[in-house]
Amino acid sequence: MTNSQGISELVINRLPRYHRFLGELLSKGVQRISSRELSEKMGLTASQIRQDLNCFGGFGQQGYGYHIEQLRNEIGNILGLNKSNRAILIGAGNLGRAIASHMNFEGKGFRLIGIFDKKEALKGQIIKGLPIRHIDDLDEFCRENLPVCAILCIPQNDAYEICNALIHLGVKGFWNFSHYDLAVNHPEIAVENVHLGDSLMKLSYKIKND
Amino acid sequence: MTNSQGISELVINRLPRYHRFLGELLSKGVQRISSRELSEKMGLTASQIRQDLNCFGGFGQQGYGYHIEQLRNEIGNILGLNKSNRAILIGAGNLGRAIASHMNFEGKGFRLIGIFDKKEALKGQIIKGLPIRHIDDLDEFCRENLPVCAILCIPQNDAYEICNALIHLGVKGFWNFSHYDLAVNHPEIAVENVHLGDSLMKLSYKIKND
Repeated sequence: MTNSQGISELVINRLPRYHRFLGELLSKGVQRISSRELSEKMGLTASQIRQDLNCFGGFGQQGYGYHIEQLRNEIGNILGLNKSNRAILIGAGNLGRAIASHMNFEGKGFRLIGIFDKKEALKGQIIKGLPIRHIDDLDEFCRENLPVCAILCIPQNDAYEICNALIHLGVKGFWNFSHYDLAVNHPEIAVENVHLGDSLMKLSYKIKND
Repeated sequence: MTNSQGISELVINRLPRYHRFLGELLSKGVQRISSRELSEKMGLTASQIRQDLNCFGGFGQQGYGYHIEQLRNEIGNILGLNKSNRAILIGAGNLGRAIASHMNFEGKGFRLIGIFDKKEALKGQIIKGLPIRHIDDLDEFCRENLPVCAILCIPQNDAYEICNALIHLGVKGFWNFSHYDLAVNHPEIAVENVHLGDSLMKLSYKIKND
């Protein structure tokens, strides 16, 4: 049932939201829920929810609904949230600091093990228990600690070279806040882009046309 | 040609990326580009690009390509980037500070005019030239300054009440970093969600399945 082959990308894109919602219900002490109730809370149709959750076997029982904890665990397994992928942060400016301090990596499949910046002055400062290291130490650190994921909070112009180096050092996935379009040059690598500027422009469009 | 009615959401979602790429080309002194060249740089097919840009009249000329500045301006007009929508930031924690300091609002249709937090201790601190105000002053500030957009960098539990108040005060759009699913309760409001946790979970899935 944890075999996730054949699940469409659209369904995968919705799984984190299901996981989040089910977690909120659990924290309120709710143990089971019908697809109708879940659909009202999430703004989806009940048939959409049944279709999505049936993709990986489903847990709904007629007249009982979904067992929330079981369903949430299963979604977590599919997403790989029980892993502890070693991640490093590149760029400890405002955004990088916010990401390092704000995010709960542990519950989402990752563990932050290193922070790097090119500014000498930042070296040794502590964020979330980790010292900022100089970018010159990246190579040695990666050879010793084998991170599989890099979080890029650096300007586009710096990203190209660092990405090539990191891929060469074995990094398999990037959480990309830079404007460097990594996936165009490296289609073999796992990339999640967070283009904040693009999101703001879309909001501008929506406000204009609402 | 600036009439954007009838442009599909999928095309709109791609427009910020075109705008960004064309801006990079302009800054390098490039004045025109063929759909083939643009497609190589962006990792799309040339026919996809022609189709997208034809949606709003298109600027390509056989054997000449696109006039970059003209095309970029037109995309900017469709997205409303020439506007100056008054925006306020709610929540001046790590993430809120990073957003306020890091983002170039002016080039994206917005102007940041106020920052609010519920922590008394933050009151009066300056971020990007703006003093942090106490959340109790929100109502009066909005009546005087009529913001149309709010950026939510607050916990989910605080978001419900503040959103209702802001909508009542005339706010038409939300850039939502909280986990409150605003659009479910207010389908009439323009919302762009940035669910960083969801993005990280998707990356976890991609790394696991690559």
